[in-house]
Amino acid sequence: MEHLRLLPFEEIEEAMVDHHRMLRCGFPEVVYGESKNATQIIAIMERIKESGDNILVTRLNERKYRIIKDYFPHAQYDPVGRTLVVMNKPVEILGTGKILVICAGTSDIPVAREAVTTAEIMGNEVELLLDVGVSGLHRLFSKLDVIMSANVLIVVAGMEGALPSVVGGIVSRPVIAVPTSVGYGAGLRGMAALLGMLSSCAAGVTVVNIDNGFGAGYAASLMNRRLEAYEDPLP
Amino acid sequence: MEHLRLLPFEEIEEAMVDHHRMLRCGFPEVVYGESKNATQIIAIMERIKESGDNILVTRLNERKYRIIKDYFPHAQYDPVGRTLVVMNKPVEILGTGKILVICAGTSDIPVAREAVTTAEIMGNEVELLLDVGVSGLHRLFSKLDVIMSANVLIVVAGMEGALPSVVGGIVSRPVIAVPTSVGYGAGLRGMAALLGMLSSCAAGVTVVNIDNGFGAGYAASLMNRRLEAYEDPLP
Amino acid sequence: MEHLRLLPFEEIEEAMVDHHRMLRCGFPEVVYGESKNATQIIAIMERIKESGDNILVTRLNERKYRIIKDYFPHAQYDPVGRTLVVMNKPVEILGTGKILVICAGTSDIPVAREAVTTAEIMGNEVELLLDVGVSGLHRLFSKLDVIMSANVLIVVAGMEGALPSVVGGIVSRPVIAVPTSVGYGAGLRGMAALLGMLSSCAAGVTVVNIDNGFGAGYAASLMNRRLEAYEDPLP
Amino acid sequence: MEHLRLLPFEEIEEAMVDHHRMLRCGFPEVVYGESKNATQIIAIMERIKESGDNILVTRLNERKYRIIKDYFPHAQYDPVGRTLVVMNKPVEILGTGKILVICAGTSDIPVAREAVTTAEIMGNEVELLLDVGVSGLHRLFSKLDVIMSANVLIVVAGMEGALPSVVGGIVSRPVIAVPTSVGYGAGLRGMAALLGMLSSCAAGVTVVNIDNGFGAGYAASLMNRRLEAYEDPLP
Amino acid sequence: MEHLRLLPFEEIEEAMVDHHRMLRCGFPEVVYGESKNATQIIAIMERIKESGDNILVTRLNERKYRIIKDYFPHAQYDPVGRTLVVMNKPVEILGTGKILVICAGTSDIPVAREAVTTAEIMGNEVELLLDVGVSGLHRLFSKLDVIMSANVLIVVAGMEGALPSVVGGIVSRPVIAVPTSVGYGAGLRGMAALLGMLSSCAAGVTVVNIDNGFGAGYAASLMNRRLEAYEDPLP
Amino acid sequence: MEHLRLLPFEEIEEAMVDHHRMLRCGFPEVVYGESKNATQIIAIMERIKESGDNILVTRLNERKYRIIKDYFPHAQYDPVGRTLVVMNKPVEILGTGKILVICAGTSDIPVAREAVTTAEIMGNEVELLLDVGVSGLHRLFSKLDVIMSANVLIVVAGMEGALPSVVGGIVSRPVIAVPTSVGYGAGLRGMAALLGMLSSCAAGVTVVNIDNGFGAGYAASLMNRRLEAYEDPLP
Amino acid sequence: MEHLRLLPFEEIEEAMVDHHRMLRCGFPEVVYGESKNATQIIAIMERIKESGDNILVTRLNERKYRIIKDYFPHAQYDPVGRTLVVMNKPVEILGTGKILVICAGTSDIPVAREAVTTAEIMGNEVELLLDVGVSGLHRLFSKLDVIMSANVLIVVAGMEGALPSVVGGIVSRPVIAVPTSVGYGAGLRGMAALLGMLSSCAAGVTVVNIDNGFGAGYAASLMNRRLEAYEDPLP
Amino acid sequence: MEHLRLLPFEEIEEAMVDHHRMLRCGFPEVVYGESKNATQIIAIMERIKESGDNILVTRLNERKYRIIKDYFPHAQYDPVGRTLVVMNKPVEILGTGKILVICAGTSDIPVAREAVTTAEIMGNEVELLLDVGVSGLHRLFSKLDVIMSANVLIVVAGMEGALPSVVGGIVSRPVIAVPTSVGYGAGLRGMAALLGMLSSCAAGVTVVNIDNGFGAGYAASLMNRRLEAYEDPLP
Repeated sequence: MEHLRLLPFEEIEEAMVDHHRMLRCGFPEVVYGESKNATQIIAIMERIKESGDNILVTRLNERKYRIIKDYFPHAQYDPVGRTLVVMNKPVEILGTGKILVICAGTSDIPVAREAVTTAEIMGNEVELLLDVGVSGLHRLFSKLDVIMSANVLIVVAGMEGALPSVVGGIVSRPVIAVPTSVGYGAGLRGMAALLGMLSSCAAGVTVVNIDNGFGAGYAASLMNRRLEAYEDPLP
Repeated sequence: MEHLRLLPFEEIEEAMVDHHRMLRCGFPEVVYGESKNATQIIAIMERIKESGDNILVTRLNERKYRIIKDYFPHAQYDPVGRTLVVMNKPVEILGTGKILVICAGTSDIPVAREAVTTAEIMGNEVELLLDVGVSGLHRLFSKLDVIMSANVLIVVAGMEGALPSVVGGIVSRPVIAVPTSVGYGAGLRGMAALLGMLSSCAAGVTVVNIDNGFGAGYAASLMNRRLEAYEDPLP
Repeated sequence: MEHLRLLPFEEIEEAMVDHHRMLRCGFPEVVYGESKNATQIIAIMERIKESGDNILVTRLNERKYRIIKDYFPHAQYDPVGRTLVVMNKPVEILGTGKILVICAGTSDIPVAREAVTTAEIMGNEVELLLDVGVSGLHRLFSKLDVIMSANVLIVVAGMEGALPSVVGGIVSRPVIAVPTSVGYGAGLRGMAALLGMLSSCAAGVTVVNIDNGFGAGYAASLMNRRLEAYEDPLP
Repeated sequence: MEHLRLLPFEEIEEAMVDHHRMLRCGFPEVVYGESKNATQIIAIMERIKESGDNILVTRLNERKYRIIKDYFPHAQYDPVGRTLVVMNKPVEILGTGKILVICAGTSDIPVAREAVTTAEIMGNEVELLLDVGVSGLHRLFSKLDVIMSANVLIVVAGMEGALPSVVGGIVSRPVIAVPTSVGYGAGLRGMAALLGMLSSCAAGVTVVNIDNGFGAGYAASLMNRRLEAYEDPLP
Repeated sequence: MEHLRLLPFEEIEEAMVDHHRMLRCGFPEVVYGESKNATQIIAIMERIKESGDNILVTRLNERKYRIIKDYFPHAQYDPVGRTLVVMNKPVEILGTGKILVICAGTSDIPVAREAVTTAEIMGNEVELLLDVGVSGLHRLFSKLDVIMSANVLIVVAGMEGALPSVVGGIVSRPVIAVPTSVGYGAGLRGMAALLGMLSSCAAGVTVVNIDNGFGAGYAASLMNRRLEAYEDPLP
Repeated sequence: MEHLRLLPFEEIEEAMVDHHRMLRCGFPEVVYGESKNATQIIAIMERIKESGDNILVTRLNERKYRIIKDYFPHAQYDPVGRTLVVMNKPVEILGTGKILVICAGTSDIPVAREAVTTAEIMGNEVELLLDVGVSGLHRLFSKLDVIMSANVLIVVAGMEGALPSVVGGIVSRPVIAVPTSVGYGAGLRGMAALLGMLSSCAAGVTVVNIDNGFGAGYAASLMNRRLEAYEDPLP
Repeated sequence: MEHLRLLPFEEIEEAMVDHHRMLRCGFPEVVYGESKNATQIIAIMERIKESGDNILVTRLNERKYRIIKDYFPHAQYDPVGRTLVVMNKPVEILGTGKILVICAGTSDIPVAREAVTTAEIMGNEVELLLDVGVSGLHRLFSKLDVIMSANVLIVVAGMEGALPSVVGGIVSRPVIAVPTSVGYGAGLRGMAALLGMLSSCAAGVTVVNIDNGFGAGYAASLMNRRLEAYEDPLP
Repeated sequence: MEHLRLLPFEEIEEAMVDHHRMLRCGFPEVVYGESKNATQIIAIMERIKESGDNILVTRLNERKYRIIKDYFPHAQYDPVGRTLVVMNKPVEILGTGKILVICAGTSDIPVAREAVTTAEIMGNEVELLLDVGVSGLHRLFSKLDVIMSANVLIVVAGMEGALPSVVGGIVSRPVIAVPTSVGYGAGLRGMAALLGMLSSCAAGVTVVNIDNGFGAGYAASLMNRRLEAYEDPLP
């Protein structure tokens, strides 16, 4: 711990940007955009830029983006997934296989796109399957070869959240279930899907928070990585 | 209403047995055994017996059954579905097609059996499919012909309750979803399955209360019946 | 399954429109308008139009409708029920009897209208009874003949959701209960009505999600249909 | 307040019996038996007996009763309502009219009986209507004259708890709704009935806690009483 | 019931105004304004005006009021309690005593005012005590004489909802507790207050829905009325 | 941290007893007895005894105590508060003032006693006030001098949990509110009291978990202590 | 109590400002700004100003502030913590030690600032630690000396709310945990953090309502104060 | 799918044992013992034994074990983790690294042991760290080298469930969080820990159901495996 304490980090007024996290993780810096205003986000991005790392901003609405793009004109914004990416250096592929993101319904696409972007910037080959919900299983089965070839699977579903159980019953690879807040009434803003996924009868399924596409993409990256890739950057 | 008020019904101390319900419905009398002791159940059964109707007792544990069988030695008891049936006259087939009860897991069988017994005594041909959960869909698909031939389907499932969505996406017949209290933790004693089924992405699915096999069997019987069968007994 | 996999369906960017569902169901294509923007809805409608099927768009607000009507000038919009209907071919009556939609209060009318429109476009004779809540039962009893003549009943109610129990105690036909989010405080945005309907003391009542008028109309159509009507379109 | 502070009350180890509450209320002393053992209950009863007041013990199981009856052989125990009454002086009728307790189902009877006993010992004429649930309304309407003649009504119902709305729509007198924990699954141990009753569309309905027959009987007594009866005992 | 069925009531498109309810109750017509637009409210008010009854509109925001006042220029609007009153005939005092409305905090005043207006138009003498919460009990005790002289008490409180227990422990008259949605976080939009009031240790307290000032005023009016006043208008 | 890592602690199979916590805190060792069997508890107590510290076991039922007392014959057991105390050295008074525990109802006494015992063994003068609930406030006010003289107050209450707000409005000292699981139905096993206390309108009130008398006693001890008493044992 | 009743307080229409609370507490007057409009707040502030006390307004948005500042030009507004302070006399340091406010994440800062301002105006030395969450513990440990020197600690955290347990395991001083509504989905608007903090495995932690920075600052001030400071102002 | 349908599986009365799951997964057969009686479990085990696979029975209480051991005398039973293992062939190490199970408190050990046993029988090297909760972080930091060397981590914690966030902030490997039902009151039988873990501020954490040690061990095995190991058994 004596060691950890001496690692370089800096205090700034509104957010302590933690450079050595990148050292520990080999991952880019991530800024959660939801509860920060454009000025705060720009300040943090400027600090990260100095370090040369890539930057991922999540939950960024278009209004904030229009302010930020004057300062970071080369940043790539995805209005569906609400992510902003600044590439300060090329992404190196660190994953051992492919990460497959399966999306149950049209309304779940924003969360799925956040997962795709996260996994890509963290060094993975990623593929996205759209609109393959449980009530039309022939769509799912027409993609069986794609599904069977993935190393880690992220399944994004709202409403009753049944898709991860179905996928988890087909493959023998880690499945990360992402409930979405899509639906209404008894869906309880995603709680029905969340509780269902946690109660899944298919073993091998683990769950992240409602709408947490970033968390799923991040966790999938850790699962897809060689252990060595992780140990290298440790001093 | 003046008419309805004059229909014959009798007050007894602990339960008013309502004979003209049978007149209205063409169905047997049903006794909910959970919150009544053996003495009360016997008293009610004796009254019904006089009318010559068939009797269905639900949620009857073995301890109460052992007392009752001395008074109704010909009653048929199902220790798994916890139902007791007294046949005072033959059951006439009133349904237009077959009712199929699909049971997701081993632990859901008691609820499925309650549904089967209810639908049978109400004049239906009934078939039961066991252990065809979402995490092993090939089991489901091996029974596709049976599933496609049913007029009404009852799908019994605990845990994440995903099976009704899958079945509802395959058939174009009414699907009654029955959540069960099987599971633990985030299953919330059946609430996860219930909320999931209500949020089902498959249209045509309707839901009954947790563990309510009787209600599902009864509703399926109404759906399976010709309208005429219902209009006949009306005065 | 081999067969199902080869059925024609097409991938488009934002939504895979599933034509063979119509083949399976004999029903029109349905577009859930809530979480799609006008552009997406128009794109999907254009694809469906090519197939010659009728189109039902649900949960469509007036702002989106004003954009869509330039592209589909003959579409019929119901601002109360928030549905849009495009008739590409006449509706054939497939139901065996009448579907009756009973609406407890003034505020429940939008949900009831969504159920009526859905059942009508799916080939049923539909009747609507307005404002016949439990606290004024003489209104209900003045319509007893209408109620007794229906083949399937949909009961729409918010607040305490007591009406389905009353109706279910009168008729011997399937009753679909639709809780609405009308009410406040302890009504918990429709959860009180939902839980009450699921706990109904009247057998034969099944329940759909809060405010799900479409689901109720769809399920009622399945219950009202002859089994043959369903088997015909199967290859 | 100086005055209130000087009123006689006594501390005993486990429970401070509050004599002047009787002075304020003109009501008997009440002991809540659920969380006290027989020894504690007897000790409290002995203290009350000295004051000459009548005693009502609620939520008393038979095991405790068998111990207590050796000390209070003239006490009247109701094993259904689980109440014990010791009459140290005759009950004076203080109510201005009749209190009617309406009980929806067989399983709700214990709670209804607790309400009846409470209202009787507090000086009211009480009548009890059994098993008149919403799914069989003709039973309710056959008793319309009894219902219309009551001054205060207590309606006890479990499951969906719809009966108070129906009764509240018929009468123009105060209706106290008592949800019971009867039911299962979505009934949530009485919460569904409670939430439904609070959301009742019938004005004039007020609600007490789940299974709180005593509270309903007590509140009904206050409503049925002349204001003078209350002002007399005030010093 | 034959009789009730023949009583005059009229169907209009959006709301069946029920004139004989006034006959039954001796009360004015009430319009719930929340879920109706100004046009609908005006239509209903016009119909009631013809009958000569007084009108109470609740939950009416200022925007709707500004439209309505052109049609009903003599209507009295209370922007705090959000009620609109149209006096077509003088209010006759029907209550036997005074109704006291006690309001715990500044933020609870709108609900308290709705209760006051409701009770007044229904023929009661009403008094309002402001800002006498549990955390400053000396305020409550300085009004002890006012509290002791009321026939029925309405206690309006948000946050922890403790005031009804305190008041219920002082008086021996009916206390109607009204939880309000005031508060935040663990207050759960009034659920904490509601649950607390239902669990009140003071007998004689009954509860209405969150923010339901109207329901409390209505129920208090029924409690405050002589039984005769109710029986007179019955045919 | 290097330092902390070297502090002496020992691994044993089922529980790592942490001796330096005592060094840091100046407090005795505490064993949570609920989820451990008698054998495990005795093993842990033997280890602590060697260190010479005092021992407090909480949530210990009588059955386990009867086994333990053979090994620790001088241990003092409180069957009401379910605590066991072993005094290996005299308790030194470290508190700056008196801790007052106020108990709302008879059924809350076990939790109050756990708080008293905890605070006493941690070096405080403690006083206990019994049965002073909100519905009988004169009892509370008769003890006003005792209440005003306390340095820290613990208020234990179930049901609606209103007492902490009342006490917090009287004193200007820290008030720790302890909700209890006493009550039923809408009390939700203590959640109603917990939510109410968190929503308290009286500032200065902080809350611990339901039935957590130990936590309240422990926190009160920290609040009652001089800062110096804490700094002394730090190396 | 006779005494308390005679203490000076004044009724004004919308809020009874309670001057003697200051007498009892030695604290400034506090106005909760959330549910009051600017006019009401100004009226109350004017009354307090006459007494010469300091004023703290909490939950005040910028729109209201811009109106108020015309009347109180010297008031200090904090747009982050949303507090307004009017200093009518210098703040006297009454605390015995330092209060440390620890803030887990950037989004928790507004609540932390409300706590800081509250504790400062109540006469305490306060220090604020920013962005020291559980997932980067080296930040926390780099501040160990600051943490160990505080007399009372306030820990503000959203999401999983784990920080108070960590801090409570390090120090032996009172820790007040403040859950924040930061987060989404399963965070349930702060309920996850609240429930977690209440279940904390670290003894000595007490909890206030979600986002209640004021309550935490107020309670910390009471804990940090000498008992004498409190007894002095009592008459 | 044609292929999958033809794979060998057998129907038996109470449970369809699915042999080809093993083929797909390379894993042993697992029997969930909670809801099956000893006779059912033995029947299933006999069928599996014929296939030569290893057997894992979870949630098996001692009473059932005592019956089963007569039929499977060589089975190894763990009374703490409640697992039964029958080794029909040696376990082959398929994992690429070590799985570390970290257990927060003594009461969480049963769940942790279930995870250990599951991961071991599925071909992994597993290590277990006991009693390293957040309130005593020096214990955690004394094991930093063990923690850093694991390929996949399972963190088992009840109460506030904070440990996974702390561990997830230290390592850059997948962390599976397992909430346990340990705790009481606001812990809501594990829901507080579950919600907290889902809201974790540490990315890379995924969650399984409450007390689901088996699910965590199974998912960890999938994460720890080489993709090739999975592809081999595919036909």
